[in-house]
Amino acid sequence: MERLPGFRDFYPEPLPHEDVWSADARQYLFDRWRGTARRYGFREYDGPPLEPLELYTTKSGDEIVGQLYNFADKGNRAVSLRPEMTPTLARMVAAHARNYRKPIKWFAIPQLFRYERQQKGRLREHFQLNADIIGEPDLSADAEMLALLIDVLRGLGLTSEDFCVRLSSRRAWHEFYVHHHGEPGQAYDFYQAIDKLGRESTEESRKKLGAIGFQLDAVTSFINEGRPTPDLQAILDNLNARGLGEFVKVDYHVIRGLAYYTGVVFEAFDKKGEFRAIAGGGRYDNLVKLISGNKVDLPALGFGMGDVVLLELLKARGLLPRFDAGLDVYCLIEDEMLRGESLRLVQDLRGAGCAVEYPLAPAKPDKQFKRALELKCAFTARLERAAAGNLLVKLKDLATREERILTPAEVVQTMAKG
Amino acid sequence: MERLPGFRDFYPEPLPHEDVWSADARQYLFDRWRGTARRYGFREYDGPPLEPLELYTTKSGDEIVGQLYNFADKGNRAVSLRPEMTPTLARMVAAHARNYRKPIKWFAIPQLFRYERQQKGRLREHFQLNADIIGEPDLSADAEMLALLIDVLRGLGLTSEDFCVRLSSRRAWHEFYVHHHGEPGQAYDFYQAIDKLGRESTEESRKKLGAIGFQLDAVTSFINEGRPTPDLQAILDNLNARGLGEFVKVDYHVIRGLAYYTGVVFEAFDKKGEFRAIAGGGRYDNLVKLISGNKVDLPALGFGMGDVVLLELLKARGLLPRFDAGLDVYCLIEDEMLRGESLRLVQDLRGAGCAVEYPLAPAKPDKQFKRALELKCAFTARLERAAAGNLLVKLKDLATREERILTPAEVVQTMAKG
Repeated sequence: MERLPGFRDFYPEPLPHEDVWSADARQYLFDRWRGTARRYGFREYDGPPLEPLELYTTKSGDEIVGQLYNFADKGNRAVSLRPEMTPTLARMVAAHARNYRKPIKWFAIPQLFRYERQQKGRLREHFQLNADIIGEPDLSADAEMLALLIDVLRGLGLTSEDFCVRLSSRRAWHEFYVHHHGEPGQAYDFYQAIDKLGRESTEESRKKLGAIGFQLDAVTSFINEGRPTPDLQAILDNLNARGLGEFVKVDYHVIRGLAYYTGVVFEAFDKKGEFRAIAGGGRYDNLVKLISGNKVDLPALGFGMGDVVLLELLKARGLLPRFDAGLDVYCLIEDEMLRGESLRLVQDLRGAGCAVEYPLAPAKPDKQFKRALELKCAFTARLERAAAGNLLVKLKDLATREERILTPAEVVQTMAKG
Repeated sequence: MERLPGFRDFYPEPLPHEDVWSADARQYLFDRWRGTARRYGFREYDGPPLEPLELYTTKSGDEIVGQLYNFADKGNRAVSLRPEMTPTLARMVAAHARNYRKPIKWFAIPQLFRYERQQKGRLREHFQLNADIIGEPDLSADAEMLALLIDVLRGLGLTSEDFCVRLSSRRAWHEFYVHHHGEPGQAYDFYQAIDKLGRESTEESRKKLGAIGFQLDAVTSFINEGRPTPDLQAILDNLNARGLGEFVKVDYHVIRGLAYYTGVVFEAFDKKGEFRAIAGGGRYDNLVKLISGNKVDLPALGFGMGDVVLLELLKARGLLPRFDAGLDVYCLIEDEMLRGESLRLVQDLRGAGCAVEYPLAPAKPDKQFKRALELKCAFTARLERAAAGNLLVKLKDLATREERILTPAEVVQTMAKG
C-alpha cells in the first residue's frame, strides 16, 4: 500500500530511499524555529488542522479556495483541512483578544494542505513557521518581524551570502495605482499582474496590464527606480540599527499573491535564485476585523516560512547536520547470567539522563560490539563479576578506545547528564 | 466564527478561557515524551495525517472504521484522516524494512482523528505518543516497551502511588477460549465481551458470553485467579530486575478492543480510578504482514499514550508547571534618542541566546517596567549615555532588585547562554 501522492513519509536517518524525508532534519528545523521565535518573545499557539470551510471562503483570495481539501463531515458540516494558518490565528485572536495585552506576539508550526495539480516534486502538504504580531500599528513591528525572519535563517547557518529579504509595500503600489488612475474594482487584477512579472512573458504582462489601463513601462520604471517610501525607510533604519541592514533590500517586484495584505510586504530568497521563495509575509491590518465579523479590529502582520524549500536550501549549502540516535552508552551483555544486573545498569543510566541501548535478545559478543559501532554510541559498558563476587563495569570510550574499570554506581555517576 | 466541535485551540498561558487548551503544556508534554523515548534508543518517524482509506479498512476492527473522517479528494481518491498510527507505521516499515537493522525502535507524536458521537467533553482529535518495536519476537521487547511506558510517566512526575500498568495476554485468553471450546469464528465477539466486563451490567455480560457458549463465572474466576502465564512471568522478572516491578500487575480484565493484538496486552491507569486509560498497547505480530500484503512478515508491538487523559491527570495531581514567556531580559527604552542603540543591544543579547523583549512603540517608563514584571522577565536592561558620551547599561535583577552598571558588551557577556 502506498502513501497518497504529494504527501511525505518521515524516516529516521540514514534514509532508506531518496523518495522519503528525514524526521530528524524536520525536528532539527522545528527546534531551531521554536528557539529563535522564543528568543524574540514569541509564544506558541496552535489550532485544529480541520476548520469550518467558511473560514477560508469569507476572505477573498480565490486562488486558495480552488485548492482546498474540503469535504462534508459525518455531521454534514462543510469543513476543510487548513491551507494556511492566518485565518485560524485571526479567529483565535478575535475570540480572546481582550484577555491578552497588545502587542500579541505568537508563532505556530502548523502542517498545511493544498490540493495543487500534481507537478514534478510539488507537494500537497508542508509545515510552516508562522509568526505574527497583532495589535501594533507602528512600523517597528514590521522591523521586528523582519529581524526575526533574518535571525531564523541565520540560526540555521545561512548568511547574507546565501539569502536576501526583498522588501516592498502594498501601500506604495496602491499609491502608484491611484496615481495612474486605476479602477478601484480592478486592483486585485493589477496586484496579480505585478506578482507574475518576470514569471510570465513580457508580452503577456504588457497585455494584462494594458487591459486594466496600465503601461508596462511605467510599472517597470517604478520598480527599477526602487525608491523606498518613508515607511520602508523607517524599517531599513531600524534594521540598520540592529546591524541587519545587509540582509534586506527594497524590491517592488514583491507584492504577494494573497488579497489580504495592506502595508509592507516581503519575501526571502536564496541569492543564487535556485529556489522558490523561502518565506513571505506582510501586514494585513483588516483581516482580524473581517474574520471576527467586525467585532475585533486589530492591526496585524506576519510571515510564513515553509519547511520544503528551506530544507532543500540547507541541504544544497551543506548546512544540515547528519543525525543518528545520539546514544551515550551501549550496554554489552556477554554473560547472560548477568542480564538482570545489566538491565538494572541500563535502567539506572537512563534514569541519570543517558540514552542507552542494549541487546534485547541474547547475541554474540562481536555482533553486539558491531551494533554499538553502527549505532554510533559514545561508550560501551560491560558488566563482569569479579573474583570477589562484586560487580564491575568495563566502560569503553569508542572514540579513544580507552577503557576504564568502575563500579556500576561510578559508571552512572560518570555518565550522568546535567 | 467558531472552531469545529470536538477540536481544540491551544493558547499560550495564562489561558484566556477554560474552554481552550495550553499550547505550553502541550509542548512540555511533547518534549518529555521525546526525551524519554530517545533515552530508550527510539528514533522519531512520522507519516501523513491523510492516508488512503484502504489502509484502515484492510484490517478488521470495525469500531474504528465507523468513526473515520473519510472523504473523496479532488482526484476522487478515497482518503481518511488517520484515526490511529499503527497502520501508517506498518505501511512505512513494510516499504523499507530491508534497510533497517532489526529490532527497529521508533516513536511518533501524531495527531489522530475520530468522529465519535459528541458527548460531554469527548474530543474528536488528540495527540498520541506512539512507540513501537518491530522485528523482535523475544519477550524482552515487551518488557522494554513497558519500561518505556513507565519511565515516560515517571518523567512527568507520576509515581507508583499515581498509576499502575495492568498486564494481560491475548494468548492466555486465546488458550482459555480454546480450552472452553469457543467457536473460532466468534473469538472477536468474545474479546469484545471481556473488554466490556465491568463497564456494562453483569446481566448484559452474562447474556453476551452465554450467546457464544461461555459462562460468566468461568471467566471471572479465570480473571480473579490472575495467574501469570510463563510469558507474563518472564516480563515481570525483567521489570523486577530493572527495579520497576511495583508499577505492573497481572490483570486479565485487560484485553484491548482492537482486533489485531496477538500476545501481551497492557493498559496504564491512574490508581484512583478517576480517569480513562492513560495508555494501552500490546503485541500485534501479524499486522505488518497484513498491511504489506504478505510481503514483509515481522513481529511487532507498541503502545499509544494520548495527551488528553494524561494532561487531565497531571493537572489533577498538581504536576503541570505554570508556563510564561521565559524571558531573560526586558530592554527598557526610556530615552527614544537611544532607540537605535537599544535595538542593537536587543539584537546582541538575542544573538547571545537570550530571550529578549522591549517596547515596540514608545511608551512611558512606568508602563514599560510594569510590562517587564507582567512578562516575568528575569532582568531589565536600560541604556544611558554617560556624561563622557559613552553608553552604559543599568542591568536590574527583578528577583533581588539588585542593579549593576555595565557596558553593553559586558551585559551581553554576563547574560550570554551556553
